[in-house]
Amino acid sequence: MPVKRIGKRTWSFSENIRVLAGATVAGPKEGKGQLKGKLDYVYPDMYAGQETWEKAERKMMEDAVKLAVKKSDLSVDQIDLLLAGDLLNQNISSSFSARTHQFPLIGMFGACSASMLTLATGSALVEGGFCDYVVAAASSHNATAERQFRYPTEYGSQKPESAQWTVTGAGAGVLGKGTSGPLVRYVTMGKVVDRGLKDPFDMGSAMAPAAVDTMVAHLEDTGLAPQDYDLVVTGDLAKIGYAITSDLLTEKGLHFGERYQDCGLMIYTSDQEVFAGGSGCASSALVMYAHILDQMRKGIWNRVMVTATGALMNPVSYQQGESIPCIAHSVTLETSPHERS
Amino acid sequence: MPVKRIGKRTWSFSENIRVLAGATVAGPKEGKGQLKGKLDYVYPDMYAGQETWEKAERKMMEDAVKLAVKKSDLSVDQIDLLLAGDLLNQNISSSFSARTHQFPLIGMFGACSASMLTLATGSALVEGGFCDYVVAAASSHNATAERQFRYPTEYGSQKPESAQWTVTGAGAGVLGKGTSGPLVRYVTMGKVVDRGLKDPFDMGSAMAPAAVDTMVAHLEDTGLAPQDYDLVVTGDLAKIGYAITSDLLTEKGLHFGERYQDCGLMIYTSDQEVFAGGSGCASSALVMYAHILDQMRKGIWNRVMVTATGALMNPVSYQQGESIPCIAHSVTLETSPHERS
Repeated sequence: MPVKRIGKRTWSFSENIRVLAGATVAGPKEGKGQLKGKLDYVYPDMYAGQETWEKAERKMMEDAVKLAVKKSDLSVDQIDLLLAGDLLNQNISSSFSARTHQFPLIGMFGACSASMLTLATGSALVEGGFCDYVVAAASSHNATAERQFRYPTEYGSQKPESAQWTVTGAGAGVLGKGTSGPLVRYVTMGKVVDRGLKDPFDMGSAMAPAAVDTMVAHLEDTGLAPQDYDLVVTGDLAKIGYAITSDLLTEKGLHFGERYQDCGLMIYTSDQEVFAGGSGCASSALVMYAHILDQMRKGIWNRVMVTATGALMNPVSYQQGESIPCIAHSVTLETSPHERS
Repeated sequence: MPVKRIGKRTWSFSENIRVLAGATVAGPKEGKGQLKGKLDYVYPDMYAGQETWEKAERKMMEDAVKLAVKKSDLSVDQIDLLLAGDLLNQNISSSFSARTHQFPLIGMFGACSASMLTLATGSALVEGGFCDYVVAAASSHNATAERQFRYPTEYGSQKPESAQWTVTGAGAGVLGKGTSGPLVRYVTMGKVVDRGLKDPFDMGSAMAPAAVDTMVAHLEDTGLAPQDYDLVVTGDLAKIGYAITSDLLTEKGLHFGERYQDCGLMIYTSDQEVFAGGSGCASSALVMYAHILDQMRKGIWNRVMVTATGALMNPVSYQQGESIPCIAHSVTLETSPHERS
């Protein structure tokens, strides 16, 4: 068996594992943003036809999974496993979606890094020969996140400009061996990084060092350099975290320039009020499955790294005086050489 | 590459993946129960030297992971990954433990099935060649679970006899290729099963059908029969769920007899007040890593299946009128033929 690990934290894929199809659904605000026209479905309101916001988020993940399988041209019976994660207590969006779809479930928690954690682990299970086809999915919802992590939105509590806006939506990808869709080429697993920050209204600053830690580990393990990528994105650092990450990378002599972007700044337009930018599992999930896949299929980008960041605290740990432990999991996609334009 | 999947939901391992070492730590009540003398450490009280119960649970998982690595005779640097799950919102016991240990982390959520979900996924990543050595860990704590899922214990709210007692403790196993310790032979992944039950004080009844679904899928996929096992255990069904599972298996013509037991009935002695029996991630984790490993090393049991059950609801889904979705993930361990006595 070939060793699939290079360096300490990076997995290398050789078995032609691809993102065969991706699907995204989102709320009305996201539908008016930068991804307008690229999302598979935009709900007319945040309820998505459900009675509660929690049920709405669940519906969104169910719809994203359903659409991704449909777009892959596989039958439902061919899906061996759903790997899913979300932000809600006890991962209820994921679990209830799996109840509806009746795929075997691996529930995963990485906060907003769930998008890449599920894609990474799912790809490994296909490459390892345990599954033929799997679906990776992640969701977040502005109102469920506000209610659970902060205050019910009805309170109208004010926020500083460093706060972020949780993206409402879900993204799903179908992974398997095939002939079309970008190849999953590398995964670099995240370690918990905690620089002692405690402000839940400034997640970008807390998460930036975790993103840098994983990006640097990836480059060391693979021997690749910034210019080897067409695009490198972080998941949901938004304005402040993006600036910190750019600075930290530059300090390490890693000059990505405009190749480095953040998904939290790729969802909304500048006239939409979202404080420092987007956050949530859906931030990187929407950009990955709606935008990056599309650009790679068109041959505009040939190698893209997505480093999804997650803040792993909860309100109790915060109230007990703990700082915010963060993590970032990274997936690098490539087009096949013969597909490059 | 050999196909590692047999049937629809079962993974078959051929690469000599073993549970090289396991470690368990537990609270004082658990230390006086049936596992007395088999646990690696018993804390004098539920606080484990910490200020809060949440920090105590975290300390327990940290200690279990540390002890398991120590018992494996591997160095800390040789561990490639920690796969961990617990019951707390946003998996904080797992995330904060990973912060302490600085292993790359895959956070997993399967409620009380986390013990086997982490062992199963970790084994697949080793067999697939992505990792040499990983640690799988799970924890639960009676007081953190009461506060989060029900009421703070100070309220003194009464419970029916169908309720279960969340086990306080943590278990961890080190997985990798080696020459000693039971082989990980099969994994059968769980699907969500929900029979419409809504009573959070009767989890055993809700989870029993999920356990049966996975056990039956395992037998169909592998072609094995009840008499091929020395022991088959479920994770935390306790008295009521155990009886239902026994009945459902018998209805299907599967007569396990005394070969079938439940971990929730293997933790406490009959004079300890625990309502219907034990529950929580630590229920199956303690029985697996303290008792089953030991019995297999001694050659008393040669093939054991552990089907860990999880109830995937949260208080919000319950308050919104939802029933309890359940899941069960199964791992089958074997001793090598030459090790059998």
